Amino acid sequence: MTPSKTRSKTLNKTWSIYLSGEIHSDWRERIEEGAAAAGLDVRFAAPVTHHEASDDCGVAILGPEPDKFWHDHKGAQLNAIRTRTLIGQADIVVVRFGEKYKQWNAAFDAGYAAALGKPIIVIHQPEHQHALKEVDAAALAVAQTPEQVVAMLRYVINGELDGYTDKRQAAE
Amino acid sequence: MTPSKTRSKTLNKTWSIYLSGEIHSDWRERIEEGAAAAGLDVRFAAPVTHHEASDDCGVAILGPEPDKFWHDHKGAQLNAIRTRTLIGQADIVVVRFGEKYKQWNAAFDAGYAAALGKPIIVIHQPEHQHALKEVDAAALAVAQTPEQVVAMLRYVINGELDGYTDKRQAAE
Amino acid sequence: MTPSKTRSKTLNKTWSIYLSGEIHSDWRERIEEGAAAAGLDVRFAAPVTHHEASDDCGVAILGPEPDKFWHDHKGAQLNAIRTRTLIGQADIVVVRFGEKYKQWNAAFDAGYAAALGKPIIVIHQPEHQHALKEVDAAALAVAQTPEQVVAMLRYVINGELDGYTDKRQAAE
Amino acid sequence: MTPSKTRSKTLNKTWSIYLSGEIHSDWRERIEEGAAAAGLDVRFAAPVTHHEASDDCGVAILGPEPDKFWHDHKGAQLNAIRTRTLIGQADIVVVRFGEKYKQWNAAFDAGYAAALGKPIIVIHQPEHQHALKEVDAAALAVAQTPEQVVAMLRYVINGELDGYTDKRQAAE
Amino acid sequence: MTPSKTRSKTLNKTWSIYLSGEIHSDWRERIEEGAAAAGLDVRFAAPVTHHEASDDCGVAILGPEPDKFWHDHKGAQLNAIRTRTLIGQADIVVVRFGEKYKQWNAAFDAGYAAALGKPIIVIHQPEHQHALKEVDAAALAVAQTPEQVVAMLRYVINGELDGYTDKRQAAE
Amino acid sequence: MTPSKTRSKTLNKTWSIYLSGEIHSDWRERIEEGAAAAGLDVRFAAPVTHHEASDDCGVAILGPEPDKFWHDHKGAQLNAIRTRTLIGQADIVVVRFGEKYKQWNAAFDAGYAAALGKPIIVIHQPEHQHALKEVDAAALAVAQTPEQVVAMLRYVINGELDGYTDKRQAAE
Amino acid sequence: MTPSKTRSKTLNKTWSIYLSGEIHSDWRERIEEGAAAAGLDVRFAAPVTHHEASDDCGVAILGPEPDKFWHDHKGAQLNAIRTRTLIGQADIVVVRFGEKYKQWNAAFDAGYAAALGKPIIVIHQPEHQHALKEVDAAALAVAQTPEQVVAMLRYVINGELDGYTDKRQAAE
Amino acid sequence: MTPSKTRSKTLNKTWSIYLSGEIHSDWRERIEEGAAAAGLDVRFAAPVTHHEASDDCGVAILGPEPDKFWHDHKGAQLNAIRTRTLIGQADIVVVRFGEKYKQWNAAFDAGYAAALGKPIIVIHQPEHQHALKEVDAAALAVAQTPEQVVAMLRYVINGELDGYTDKRQAAE
Repeated sequence: MTPSKTRSKTLNKTWSIYLSGEIHSDWRERIEEGAAAAGLDVRFAAPVTHHEASDDCGVAILGPEPDKFWHDHKGAQLNAIRTRTLIGQADIVVVRFGEKYKQWNAAFDAGYAAALGKPIIVIHQPEHQHALKEVDAAALAVAQTPEQVVAMLRYVINGELDGYTDKRQAAE
Repeated sequence: MTPSKTRSKTLNKTWSIYLSGEIHSDWRERIEEGAAAAGLDVRFAAPVTHHEASDDCGVAILGPEPDKFWHDHKGAQLNAIRTRTLIGQADIVVVRFGEKYKQWNAAFDAGYAAALGKPIIVIHQPEHQHALKEVDAAALAVAQTPEQVVAMLRYVINGELDGYTDKRQAAE
Repeated sequence: MTPSKTRSKTLNKTWSIYLSGEIHSDWRERIEEGAAAAGLDVRFAAPVTHHEASDDCGVAILGPEPDKFWHDHKGAQLNAIRTRTLIGQADIVVVRFGEKYKQWNAAFDAGYAAALGKPIIVIHQPEHQHALKEVDAAALAVAQTPEQVVAMLRYVINGELDGYTDKRQAAE
Repeated sequence: MTPSKTRSKTLNKTWSIYLSGEIHSDWRERIEEGAAAAGLDVRFAAPVTHHEASDDCGVAILGPEPDKFWHDHKGAQLNAIRTRTLIGQADIVVVRFGEKYKQWNAAFDAGYAAALGKPIIVIHQPEHQHALKEVDAAALAVAQTPEQVVAMLRYVINGELDGYTDKRQAAE
Repeated sequence: MTPSKTRSKTLNKTWSIYLSGEIHSDWRERIEEGAAAAGLDVRFAAPVTHHEASDDCGVAILGPEPDKFWHDHKGAQLNAIRTRTLIGQADIVVVRFGEKYKQWNAAFDAGYAAALGKPIIVIHQPEHQHALKEVDAAALAVAQTPEQVVAMLRYVINGELDGYTDKRQAAE
Repeated sequence: MTPSKTRSKTLNKTWSIYLSGEIHSDWRERIEEGAAAAGLDVRFAAPVTHHEASDDCGVAILGPEPDKFWHDHKGAQLNAIRTRTLIGQADIVVVRFGEKYKQWNAAFDAGYAAALGKPIIVIHQPEHQHALKEVDAAALAVAQTPEQVVAMLRYVINGELDGYTDKRQAAE
Repeated sequence: MTPSKTRSKTLNKTWSIYLSGEIHSDWRERIEEGAAAAGLDVRFAAPVTHHEASDDCGVAILGPEPDKFWHDHKGAQLNAIRTRTLIGQADIVVVRFGEKYKQWNAAFDAGYAAALGKPIIVIHQPEHQHALKEVDAAALAVAQTPEQVVAMLRYVINGELDGYTDKRQAAE
Repeated sequence: MTPSKTRSKTLNKTWSIYLSGEIHSDWRERIEEGAAAAGLDVRFAAPVTHHEASDDCGVAILGPEPDKFWHDHKGAQLNAIRTRTLIGQADIVVVRFGEKYKQWNAAFDAGYAAALGKPIIVIHQPEHQHALKEVDAAALAVAQTPEQVVAMLRYVINGELDGYTDKRQAAE
């Protein structure tokens, strides 16, 4: 008996993917475009990625603070309304660490997602491997490129894997 | 590389906002109208704001009580069906303290939302600052006007901030 | 300033109401029809109310049991798939105790809902008041008729109360 | 290799057992005495079993109520402080249904314990089997006598079972 | 008074059913086709059932591993993103044990679902009855055929039971 | 058969009672002394009740703030470490509202405790009854004096009620 | 500056370790004896490991069942009172798979522990590696011998690791 | 009336404090010694702070890995057994960021603690203020020295604050 290919599909579910971390490259677009090209039923969420807006949002709306600590605090708390809500409602949390900067907020998001039991995918280059070992240990996958993330989402959501499921489909 | 503006948007999510507290001014409408004008994908919820109905609902439906304590008790418990359900399902809880009255139910709602881990935005005038310090300390933002709340919702939900993201959009 | 009547409405939320308990009178239909007449955005759920099907479902599908205990056990566990799922997903749980029978499953449902923090409305006649005092103490409302439940749902969901909110609407 | 008998013992844990339900026979003492005789490391909890105190505690302390409903309500809510706290902290909840009375509070406790995921042991006579089938279906054991409960506690806590583990012990 | 047949229906709810376990026979299709034929409002989910893809997905996407343990580990963790998410969002978890193989992942899924409080239906042949007794003890139903599962879903979701509710419907 | 008085005692449990609210009268001592006199196995917790220390703790330890809002914020957040931890670990939360001041933190604590499912006892004078109706509706008991709270703790913890259980004890 | 060795110790905590799985070898004793020899502050728990008692406990206490399915069911549910309680209260769950038998209950326990977020250590021989890959993927460590488990407990609890921390201690 | 100083003490509670982060200075000892000198009823927990042991623990116990990624992975997962357990059981989590290194595990721990609702105290120097703003925004206090942490613990646990509560004590 031949199991049908529809058996490996999840019917009628839209997956929510939160894309946390580095905001200086186009990795989010590459994932979003790849997911669209693959026809995945997903919706993506992310922090506000406009750097200056993210820094100044608190004081821009609620009034200036002479002390930089409170300037930052007001902004960070306002951003937290968005980020914690969206992480809390995500099915999968993807966290990318770039080549530069401290990126403690990315690691914070990873810890936050881990405690909520969210499946985590981490993206980083090999040179950060040792420094990120605790974060990687909490992840279900560690990738190096956005394209790998797209391939994983395609597999996880649609059960499709190049060189495997396409062969079966071709044969049917 | 230019990150696209769509990166800071949450796709396909309707945000639920609960508006708790003072019922004697038009602050809820100002937020609702501001959110509509900004094109936000939100739905608002609130307690029943008809003062007499809110006081008498229990006895009006379930029969009179000679003792004022039980009169109030029946009404308050009936209102709790609505308020606790809607706070429990909200993404963000906004609590406004007005200039008058004890408003213990507003503070109660804030505590209730805090224990559920809901992001809280408080609105009050400066003269209540000291008396509300514990409530403010549990909030992620403290505003003075409904318009500030609208600006925050616009930033949190759509990633738009006047003077920041509009410049980028204009330049693109 | 005149608060608009729309302020007391919950926008875009369908309320889930679970109707537990007595299956020998038409109280569920009276609530469902009353809710429909009031234009409430609700969906109702209930246990299977076909008495014989409810008793025999386990053995009818999974095979007979010579021992009545296991006959009943198989049926009760199959029913539990439905009832616990639907109670767990309800916004409000209504439990009606009739005039006859032990109705321990109704009290069990009430306890189950209470531990989940669900708002509970109990319906029973005055003669059961003392025997049901622990159940009533866990409820947010104790009614005697289905029509009172409809009136409460109308108030809780739409903020409408005869003799109160209709006057305001009439005056506007 | 002979596994030692200590392998089946839980070291250093005191088990908390809540005894809910019927207050007119000595079933609680029979369990407590049996557990003591078996040397079990347990502590028992129960509702207040003084019938009149349980009925009147609310008004006796907080003042009289002319309406019997509120008289009972005050008492039932005060009793709930005790019962819900102790059920919530129990390792095992035992619920006994007697031969008489409605005993809806016993069924309520069973439902409450079930929703908390507590292991439930029910005690009742065969004549209530059909009426209690939903409660039984939520239990991990259904007994008829307090002595069976003691034997189960002895097995669950100490791993001792007459005719089985004593033979091994005797042979060692 | 004749209770209407609509009373036993759950309105407007789509049930999510996760089908865990054996991937070598067509049991999933038989359930899916049976549910479709019965007109049930359900959506099914399952692990990826393409055996080779399931084994190799980790290394195919993230790069080869010389050590078989890590080869398997990468794949199993990637599969876990799918399976744990879908089990966590299911209303009912069905677990089938086939005639061959260790099938420890099926038992793992059953334990995982049990701890989340999900209703579990187990399918297996009589010869595995003793070895599966702990799994069966955590289930609300133990079936032998996919057709029995369909009949249970039809009863649980629509309240329909052959030989019972059809008679009532016929008489109306 | 005479049920023994020991049946209504909880063995070996120390109850944790959190005393929230007004800090200007000796109500906490009256409860603590009453509980000691009654021989109750309790431990009490409370916020820091030294008014100036509570206001200034943040800046005194972490450095001054020129803006009163942040002065208060630092203090309130430091106090929150204590209060939220102790409320979260309490078996019972008692909240007293005094005759003066806004006391929004007391109402906040009540809401916080309610959302955690803690049994709440409120103490206030009759003149606040209407303004506190939502808080009272979330409580399991509403008292006017600390002595009533002691009597309730004695009943809840030891099952002793003047005029009831002492008579039985006297007769034994 | 030399960090003191006490820094890596957890003060005053007794760790609870649940030992699930295979009951035919002495692996539990080897862990318990190793932990005792290492001076670890632990307490171990386990299922009842007397095979016949475990199989027959239900019918031995609650009465015989002619049908083997219910014979097993009664026993398995009684055992579940012990196992689910102890797993739920464990800090760490160790699951050993032996060389023989189906051992579905071991895999069930692993899934149960995983859904509760418990740290899991698996013990098995290399030949089961592929069949256990999903279970291993949910574990924080995969060992082959009880002695490795002891070494891990010693490291996790006391921060001691042969060849590392002993050198520092020797040098101090 | 003079409130007694005992009112601000928490009776009989040992506070558990987890000290996360930087392992190259003596900040943990300074906190532990300060707490001991202040007579606080606390117990401290921490990750294993022996750097080489922490890196190699996985392979030292479970066998070598040629690939550095898996070498680190095994160690990080073993450390996670300790750190996640102890953070999960802490009353307060203190996280210190040092002057050097990425310290992503510290930020991860902060996020993990935040999602669990643990009160967080952060310690860092002013130069990291901007990079740590998201972490600070999730904290209830941000300190620069271990001595400030001791002062906060003394205030939070014992209600003692230099210059405030000592004056009252002196006057009594």
